[in-house]
Amino acid sequence: MYNFNFCCPTRVIFGKGSIAELPKYIDKNKKVLMIYGGGSIKRNGVYDQVKKALEGYNLYEFGGIEPNPKYETCMKAVELIKREGIEFLLAVGGGSTLDGTKFIAAASKYEGEDAYNDIVVNGIEIKEALPLADVITLPATGSEMNSGAVISRLSTDEKLPFNSEKVFPQFSIIDPEVTYSLPLRQTLNGIVDTFVHVMEQYCTYDVNTPLQDDWAIGIMRTLIKEAPKVLANPTDYDTRANIFWCATCGLNNWISQGVAQDWATHMIGHELTAFYGIDHGQSLAIVEPRLLKNQKVTKSKKLAKLARELFGFNESVDLKAADLAIDAIEKFYNSIGVKTRLADYEIDAQEAAERVRDRFKARNTHLGEKGAVDADATYEILRNC
Amino acid sequence: MYNFNFCCPTRVIFGKGSIAELPKYIDKNKKVLMIYGGGSIKRNGVYDQVKKALEGYNLYEFGGIEPNPKYETCMKAVELIKREGIEFLLAVGGGSTLDGTKFIAAASKYEGEDAYNDIVVNGIEIKEALPLADVITLPATGSEMNSGAVISRLSTDEKLPFNSEKVFPQFSIIDPEVTYSLPLRQTLNGIVDTFVHVMEQYCTYDVNTPLQDDWAIGIMRTLIKEAPKVLANPTDYDTRANIFWCATCGLNNWISQGVAQDWATHMIGHELTAFYGIDHGQSLAIVEPRLLKNQKVTKSKKLAKLARELFGFNESVDLKAADLAIDAIEKFYNSIGVKTRLADYEIDAQEAAERVRDRFKARNTHLGEKGAVDADATYEILRNC
Repeated sequence: MYNFNFCCPTRVIFGKGSIAELPKYIDKNKKVLMIYGGGSIKRNGVYDQVKKALEGYNLYEFGGIEPNPKYETCMKAVELIKREGIEFLLAVGGGSTLDGTKFIAAASKYEGEDAYNDIVVNGIEIKEALPLADVITLPATGSEMNSGAVISRLSTDEKLPFNSEKVFPQFSIIDPEVTYSLPLRQTLNGIVDTFVHVMEQYCTYDVNTPLQDDWAIGIMRTLIKEAPKVLANPTDYDTRANIFWCATCGLNNWISQGVAQDWATHMIGHELTAFYGIDHGQSLAIVEPRLLKNQKVTKSKKLAKLARELFGFNESVDLKAADLAIDAIEKFYNSIGVKTRLADYEIDAQEAAERVRDRFKARNTHLGEKGAVDADATYEILRNC
Repeated sequence: MYNFNFCCPTRVIFGKGSIAELPKYIDKNKKVLMIYGGGSIKRNGVYDQVKKALEGYNLYEFGGIEPNPKYETCMKAVELIKREGIEFLLAVGGGSTLDGTKFIAAASKYEGEDAYNDIVVNGIEIKEALPLADVITLPATGSEMNSGAVISRLSTDEKLPFNSEKVFPQFSIIDPEVTYSLPLRQTLNGIVDTFVHVMEQYCTYDVNTPLQDDWAIGIMRTLIKEAPKVLANPTDYDTRANIFWCATCGLNNWISQGVAQDWATHMIGHELTAFYGIDHGQSLAIVEPRLLKNQKVTKSKKLAKLARELFGFNESVDLKAADLAIDAIEKFYNSIGVKTRLADYEIDAQEAAERVRDRFKARNTHLGEKGAVDADATYEILRNC
């Protein structure tokens, strides 16, 4: 096991009716900005629940954070915050709204010229951020219990992550009932996103961490069990609760302590989203199986463990078992209706491979737990997608 | 899944050489009190490592916290703290030292007449406590990542828990190498303690929480795998690291979110310790198998899952599988040399049963996830121990 330094101070308030608890956790004397996305919270009743809970607060609103939140939009919120003297941010929505809010929290206290370049591209140390919290409505990104965010910049077709302990949510409210009305596509994307988060942390090389491995496999096992149930009955509370808790625990860094991590699938997927506007979850489902095949030798021990312990195969040769695991993962995505080929999304694989390769060449990108996924490897991976 | 409210803000700094990182996390301008136990830290080098790391600090010392920390001893530390104006507490040692330090932190800011009665017996809300942290040297109690403590009072033969978010350690330093020199008995007690912590949270009735169940079983599986290894090779780093991380995760409340909890084995075990001075881990190994038999019907679904998923039995009848699981657990304790009968410790079962029954009658005690373990049930359980 590698050495690690873990801290996750976010309070999670989980369960039916938990939005009503908001006033317990926000100071009534603060100017609060509620940040949301395209307005789905107005249709599913969450907006009304939040407004009701925060009656009597000095509450401002900023809507319009996009999926794959844009720097340009976030900076409009920063203007509002500076103008009105906002003191607390409450994200209400999915991972994109929350990610945008994390960037807004940092950018509101940033004094330099180009917040995107400094905070996201160059990853300067963030000294201060506005306090923030969230009512999270989409089980997918795990942003509700971590200190990371992914922000896109329209002007340069970029989509990149940043991370700072200053942007941990103070608290996250998770009411699984608000996910009953989610469009099917978002539910499924969220399941794939969570599954791939876990794989990025689990599926590298073995450093003797049986507990972390078991916990990672536990999340994947639960997703595989619960996914067909949510398709059959989208308003079953326990199913929704189990899926949401998987999403949160899939990226709150519990399973990644002391292990090597990958994240190459995400970084390549981000490029597909930046170039083609493809959904995040879908981009992962396309890239991951081919990336795993490409990196099979390095990952063979963990893939073989997955084949045996998660998928129940008896194959004793690691490399053969690895193939079985990769195929079983792709089959799982397909079984819940998430397509795994670029052609399914009307994208030309050869073109995508060339575009991403050229960008990675220009950036001298080396991804993955061993840095082995470079521009040329990415080209091979995407050509086969 | 039940609703839950989870928060664990403690930072964990885990790994080889981590004691040297102490100065990163303690303000140099604070008066620091280092609190320790019977002096084992002076023999195993931890005392010297801490002193070296904190060179230049205004460092005070208080030694002599006992196993099963005593109120009477803790109050001597409180006197010193008030006299010297101590501002930060650093526990260096095992769970008892840290539990004592948590009580000291709360009692130092307490203004009333009887700190034990108010904080421990009556569980008043603690408004303020001194900030504290720890270098934890014994994998067992999980105290390094939770807000609970168990404190004994000599004058009344009492041993009771208290809990307050104000006594979360700010950080916990875990260097598994410091456990190489642990006496075998403490290593084994710690493994049993951790196993029973997990059982107290896992083994109740089913509320549809597959992820929490898998995580709990993951800790138990890891302990069963690693225990024989640590007996064979006490200085294998990964084995020690895996056991320590199990101990921490066994009681940092991750596995207990949204589930029912038991804790009857602990409460009965505390009485055996209070009356007979028996080790905590041993008291649990004695009580748990008989308590599980006594409560088998309520717990049958979870016990049967354990029989199948942890111990690999194929028994399809839940109540029969439950028996197999209970026997397998007792066999595990015995296999690592922890004895599971009162007679093994020269205690008369009939006498112990009567003493604890009388005390529970006087207190009108009802333990367990359904409150079914009352004075009479406890009498039956202990008579069979």
